[in-house]
Amino acid sequence: MPDLRIADVRVTPIAFYDPPLLNNAGCHQPFALRSIIEVETEDGVVGLGESYGTSAVLGGLAALAPACRGFAVTDLNGLWQRTRETLPPGSDVRLLLRVGGAVEVAMWDALGKATGQRVVDMLGGQVRARVPFSAYLFYKFAGHAGEAADDWGEVLSPEQLVDEARRMADEHGFRAIKLKAGVLEPEAEVAGLEALREAFPDSPLRIDPNGGWHVHTALDLLPRLEGLVEYLEDPTVGIAGNAVVQAATDVPLATNMYVVEPSHLPPNMAQDGFRVILSDHHYWGGLKASRDLAEICRIWGLGLSMHSNSHLGISLAAMVHLAAATPNLTYDCDTHSPWQVDEVIEGGKLRFEGGALRLPEGPGLGVTLDRVALARLQANFEALDYRDRDDASEMRKHWPNWQFGRPKF
Amino acid sequence: MPDLRIADVRVTPIAFYDPPLLNNAGCHQPFALRSIIEVETEDGVVGLGESYGTSAVLGGLAALAPACRGFAVTDLNGLWQRTRETLPPGSDVRLLLRVGGAVEVAMWDALGKATGQRVVDMLGGQVRARVPFSAYLFYKFAGHAGEAADDWGEVLSPEQLVDEARRMADEHGFRAIKLKAGVLEPEAEVAGLEALREAFPDSPLRIDPNGGWHVHTALDLLPRLEGLVEYLEDPTVGIAGNAVVQAATDVPLATNMYVVEPSHLPPNMAQDGFRVILSDHHYWGGLKASRDLAEICRIWGLGLSMHSNSHLGISLAAMVHLAAATPNLTYDCDTHSPWQVDEVIEGGKLRFEGGALRLPEGPGLGVTLDRVALARLQANFEALDYRDRDDASEMRKHWPNWQFGRPKF
Repeated sequence: MPDLRIADVRVTPIAFYDPPLLNNAGCHQPFALRSIIEVETEDGVVGLGESYGTSAVLGGLAALAPACRGFAVTDLNGLWQRTRETLPPGSDVRLLLRVGGAVEVAMWDALGKATGQRVVDMLGGQVRARVPFSAYLFYKFAGHAGEAADDWGEVLSPEQLVDEARRMADEHGFRAIKLKAGVLEPEAEVAGLEALREAFPDSPLRIDPNGGWHVHTALDLLPRLEGLVEYLEDPTVGIAGNAVVQAATDVPLATNMYVVEPSHLPPNMAQDGFRVILSDHHYWGGLKASRDLAEICRIWGLGLSMHSNSHLGISLAAMVHLAAATPNLTYDCDTHSPWQVDEVIEGGKLRFEGGALRLPEGPGLGVTLDRVALARLQANFEALDYRDRDDASEMRKHWPNWQFGRPKF
Repeated sequence: MPDLRIADVRVTPIAFYDPPLLNNAGCHQPFALRSIIEVETEDGVVGLGESYGTSAVLGGLAALAPACRGFAVTDLNGLWQRTRETLPPGSDVRLLLRVGGAVEVAMWDALGKATGQRVVDMLGGQVRARVPFSAYLFYKFAGHAGEAADDWGEVLSPEQLVDEARRMADEHGFRAIKLKAGVLEPEAEVAGLEALREAFPDSPLRIDPNGGWHVHTALDLLPRLEGLVEYLEDPTVGIAGNAVVQAATDVPLATNMYVVEPSHLPPNMAQDGFRVILSDHHYWGGLKASRDLAEICRIWGLGLSMHSNSHLGISLAAMVHLAAATPNLTYDCDTHSPWQVDEVIEGGKLRFEGGALRLPEGPGLGVTLDRVALARLQANFEALDYRDRDDASEMRKHWPNWQFGRPKF
């Protein structure tokens, strides 16, 4: 029988190229910060995880990693106890879930590789052969400040948005289309959505203002959005604010901002705030917590899909295993993958077919680390002059008078 | 790597001796009906489960068993899909959870035995070395109708109740004491509880009228129960009725009757009906569902403990593994084990030390089947002239004019 005890946990900070994508908080910086986690068992089996690379998460992982030695890769209770013990007293739950969750995924991968099981099987068994994803549209600048245009070019008008969607659909086959909003005047964004509807009459559409609209703005726009979108994501701020909007419409409200950890579920259920949860194993606390969330959504009759931040292939593989094991996945998942050009897994990026991914083959997550790529991306990180994401400062390099507001419009 | 596919599922109906214990529904019959489930993998590893032996559950298991061949013992999603497909159309969720859950436990045991892992580890890791249980007191007749007195004798008065508790405590070391009530006049039962308090000044006490009291009776008795019991279990009928009682007291209300499957959780949370859930893997749908329930209780801030029916050692081992992996087990578990004289596992009954059980040693559940005992208990079943539990008819053999009522008092 394999020795499942953890011998070592290694964390490598990386940075990968990210286009100048816009959102309510500003503009993506030229490099996204990320962390690669390796959990090695006493038998030398290595499990992989990928998570945020912010200073808070990297600091938490640096504290947690040595404390993981000696307990089994199955011991999720032990992981959380040690996460609580090693983070500085008073650390918030948000950080705790991110740090513990980053290691948790690598523990599942190690367990799978050590016992010859796929993660999807250990999460309850595969219920779908293909996991469908959506085209994740962003407004964007042509290039980063002071740099040449990238090959997506500028996307700020309805026509440019339709072109972006068409390229996404042509290259990857996505059906559902999601628009990251909260950037331009709401009227302009809804006009963009209407242009998408005209160009893609059969595509389920979504819009995500990232809490950028006032309640009255959301209420005013409801007549145009009803019949246009399959869900409306975080139109305004907070559970209570969004509950006012939800009470006014049959379009389900979705969230990846205000129901983002277990403690947010009871008030959301009590207030009927959001009817769709966009889960994310990076901030819910890993795969077990995400599966628990799925079961809670099933019991309470909420819809369920998956949120994404800028990520590479380890995260994507984990998302696919989780989604493939989740019976009640009610909407196509989000992914930033089409926006990324770098990769950290062997064989390069996972390839979409008809907008969907099949499970990578092999035990665990089915992916292995490309150590040459890892070293290159780590060198990116070392060379960077920032250690935390700052979309607002980046935005002001393009639009000097830009001010953050949530709600803003 | 082991072949984890299911080659065969065998179900053996058994009956074991049960004393004449009283509850709101009547009197336990001389034999309790039960089923032993064996899940055998393609490699010949056998996982064990134990569940109800009623005709409905046995019928469901007979339909499900052949449909389990070919899928992996990890495939819980596949199990539930096949359970839904093989039960007769229109079968209620209650039956579905009992039937699928019976096989699910045996799948965990088989997985553990095949991969060298204990069930407690696969459920998230051991958080306690000893799982504490309570003394489960019953009013009882001296012996079954037409039979000699058993060695517990009659228990109908406060003095007899104290004697029963003392024997339980002396033999097994239990600290918490639970009184199964809803049998006698509530005044007499509370007087019994007060006698227990006098005899055991430090023991946490509980009373379980099994929904046998009217709301007004429960409200009238609250002043005597507050400060006396750690929780009040199912004083009256339904979530709504118990919510009226809960609103009138700070003593938490517990249930194993009205929040007994996932769909009961949302109305319970919405109405603040019960603040403690007594889980039971036999009717919640197995170990995964019970762990999900534990996480839901943690998130919503509910207390959690464990209910029991008459059971043997496979069920008890599963309860101990589950409880040992559950961080938020807030009250000592219930068990009927001290009332049972038969056993179906090798080595005989698990032994309490200081009111607690340690995990059986070895992979899976850590118990193996005593096939001689199994054959004897199966012969009991074959010889019986009943196939379903009927406490009411049994009760009338002793008290001919007894009538069922819920609420009754």
